[in-house]
Amino acid sequence: MQTKRSMFKWEDLQPAAGNGLLDRRAFFKGGAAFAATMTGYTLTQSASAQQLVDAPWSAGPGSLVKAYGTPSRYEAGVARSLSNPDGLPRTQHGRTPHHLLNGTLTPNGLHFVISHSGNPDIDPDSHRLVIHGRVRRPLAFSLEALERYPMVSRMTFLECGGNSAPLFSPEPIDTDVQTIHGLVSCAEWTGVPLSTLLEETGIGPTARWFVAEGADSLALHRSVPLAKALDDAMIALYQNGERLMPGNGYPMRLLLPGWEGNMNVKWLRRIELTDAPAMGYYEARTYAPVLPDGKAYQFYFLQEVKSFITHPSPGLRLNGAGLYEISGVAYSANGRISKVMVSADAGNTWAEAALQEPVQPKAFTRFRAPWRWDGGPAVLQSRAWDEAGNVQPTRTEIVSWRGEASSVPSPLRFPSQHFNGPTSWGIDTNGEVKHVYA
Amino acid sequence: MQTKRSMFKWEDLQPAAGNGLLDRRAFFKGGAAFAATMTGYTLTQSASAQQLVDAPWSAGPGSLVKAYGTPSRYEAGVARSLSNPDGLPRTQHGRTPHHLLNGTLTPNGLHFVISHSGNPDIDPDSHRLVIHGRVRRPLAFSLEALERYPMVSRMTFLECGGNSAPLFSPEPIDTDVQTIHGLVSCAEWTGVPLSTLLEETGIGPTARWFVAEGADSLALHRSVPLAKALDDAMIALYQNGERLMPGNGYPMRLLLPGWEGNMNVKWLRRIELTDAPAMGYYEARTYAPVLPDGKAYQFYFLQEVKSFITHPSPGLRLNGAGLYEISGVAYSANGRISKVMVSADAGNTWAEAALQEPVQPKAFTRFRAPWRWDGGPAVLQSRAWDEAGNVQPTRTEIVSWRGEASSVPSPLRFPSQHFNGPTSWGIDTNGEVKHVYA
Repeated sequence: MQTKRSMFKWEDLQPAAGNGLLDRRAFFKGGAAFAATMTGYTLTQSASAQQLVDAPWSAGPGSLVKAYGTPSRYEAGVARSLSNPDGLPRTQHGRTPHHLLNGTLTPNGLHFVISHSGNPDIDPDSHRLVIHGRVRRPLAFSLEALERYPMVSRMTFLECGGNSAPLFSPEPIDTDVQTIHGLVSCAEWTGVPLSTLLEETGIGPTARWFVAEGADSLALHRSVPLAKALDDAMIALYQNGERLMPGNGYPMRLLLPGWEGNMNVKWLRRIELTDAPAMGYYEARTYAPVLPDGKAYQFYFLQEVKSFITHPSPGLRLNGAGLYEISGVAYSANGRISKVMVSADAGNTWAEAALQEPVQPKAFTRFRAPWRWDGGPAVLQSRAWDEAGNVQPTRTEIVSWRGEASSVPSPLRFPSQHFNGPTSWGIDTNGEVKHVYA
Repeated sequence: MQTKRSMFKWEDLQPAAGNGLLDRRAFFKGGAAFAATMTGYTLTQSASAQQLVDAPWSAGPGSLVKAYGTPSRYEAGVARSLSNPDGLPRTQHGRTPHHLLNGTLTPNGLHFVISHSGNPDIDPDSHRLVIHGRVRRPLAFSLEALERYPMVSRMTFLECGGNSAPLFSPEPIDTDVQTIHGLVSCAEWTGVPLSTLLEETGIGPTARWFVAEGADSLALHRSVPLAKALDDAMIALYQNGERLMPGNGYPMRLLLPGWEGNMNVKWLRRIELTDAPAMGYYEARTYAPVLPDGKAYQFYFLQEVKSFITHPSPGLRLNGAGLYEISGVAYSANGRISKVMVSADAGNTWAEAALQEPVQPKAFTRFRAPWRWDGGPAVLQSRAWDEAGNVQPTRTEIVSWRGEASSVPSPLRFPSQHFNGPTSWGIDTNGEVKHVYA
């Protein structure tokens, strides 16, 4: 935490933008911008003593320390939303509840999951990763073998190409940030650089692509340009410190930082070096949507610069006028987030948000902005820039490029992919938050 | 991941220190230092096809995606070790299995826990944090009220003052890194700076300390100098993105980055500003051990620079001579880790380890060093420096300052505290790893 705090100054309370938005400098000069807020209950010394009467849980011993901890029973609602909880023979989605989380990473139990044929129950001792095709010598690696190689760790987001697709809907959607943006998460991944393994196998002179295949029952496979393998691709073995979760590819997955989630093949069992892409199901069909001009795009790998506000957002009601923190996450496949601007008046005026350090490339960056709500209607938006100079396009621009859904898209049928426009949250005088277009 | 990889160069294979240790530059020039290693099984193309026969888990649909993910059943052994699994009326310890983890943070289920009277089952809606005493106006904060304040996130380690105390034993210990060093973990914590709340209450002119008290049945409390409150103390509400685990203080705890674990009061319900420390049980007795000269030290807050090797370590057997990664964690209350040196010959020669970026202050830093084991006896050690210029002392120095146990200390009775000397792992010709003194 590099945010430096000093003493309170009244000038920090001057709004930097319309509708009560304060500048990020309010953070650097002090949480002091919140002095004299109403959020604490003022007490006399005797009243504070009254607050300290023992609650039932202070009256006796608590519960056992467990070998593997789980959240409090009061947090049972902090869960992934499931598109197919009975496991009917189609895809299952589990979406991250961003409005109930904070910080820059997603805990493993809540990382988003998309499984097209469930999560295979892989015995790690018999699982092998085979690298073959246009190599000098094909090799098979056990988990034990992989453990001996030099590893790297990195924070990176993973995002489904279909995340945020509900925003192709022509009308605002009566739902929350989990439904709209729950197919992106961020974790620290640790594993062996794919480039290291390719130094072992050697790379044949005609190799230009590789095809990665999973050990799930449909043998999900995607084609990846070889250049990504020689850049930052990783065979990931650990997720936030522990072995991968079953839904995230246990015991190993391909990690392609910043690239379309579906390409980060889970339960990885095979990498074949090839001279051309395989034109598999997902690259030829699902992630090659038809554009308004009748052509399809294909091999749209990058998950480009995006941001959304998580607090406040639908489901989190504002409890009266006064000071609040607006916060959310921003990320880009093209490197670090360089700036996030926040508006509380539907984009008429903007204030710069504070970015939580360290700002890491291709990872969630938490942005924060103090806001004094006057109790009237407001529309919150965020807009992010990355260090490569990209900025989130407007919704109008994206719809002109990709088309618009004819109705609210179902979580199973997206009209298009790679939506990275802004999200608007409307706040009414009761403090209710709803999705709006603005 | 800033580690830059380029093409293989044979000169990288020259050892930088005795007994096969390679320099960290081998990382920067390429995992290529591992080329021609034996860890992969060489295959003919037909043999690699044979490796790809479908395993049983590839033959049909897998298991359901769950609302809250949990590790594979094959990872059941990746668990905290419990000192008191039946919850007898004394302290319960749950230790982090560092040898089974990798990366720079500890997943929430495996973060170390010490609970002196179990984990209270707190209803977050009725819990309050009261700040009173030498303040201008006492205040009580609900969780909802705290949620409105500007927050910060930071990675930081938490370490019990008694962690590593088994190394006060006069003889080597037949156990693993979990038993010796399992009372330290690292997470990303998010919450409200305590300084912000003290700007709300105001600070009385005679306030010099504060006493933090938990809502557990023994109302555990510790005294903290006020200067720490105005520096980086936090009321932590989130741990690795989600709400705190019950064993880590749900719904809120005091976080004092770098300071003795016991002071980071869990289940926090009260902060009283005072003019002097309270001389509570833990500061007057447990964390004030008697020194060889008969005096006791007290208020020894900092968890000073330390490192230990997690891979290899006892329980992880080396499977034949060849190349391995030596890795571990280093951390310091005094800022960033600046350097870690690794030895494979009991400290006769040293090589500099690579540090995983970003290196953050008061957080775990993962260090890594490639090593070519010749199959003979070896003794692995690490030694860390921090940016304030501190280095781990030798065990001889620490024992001269603090005394030595008369026998192997039990996890419940430490002869002293704050051991931050080196740890030595002896490797025999069978690849077995054992704790040794060297």
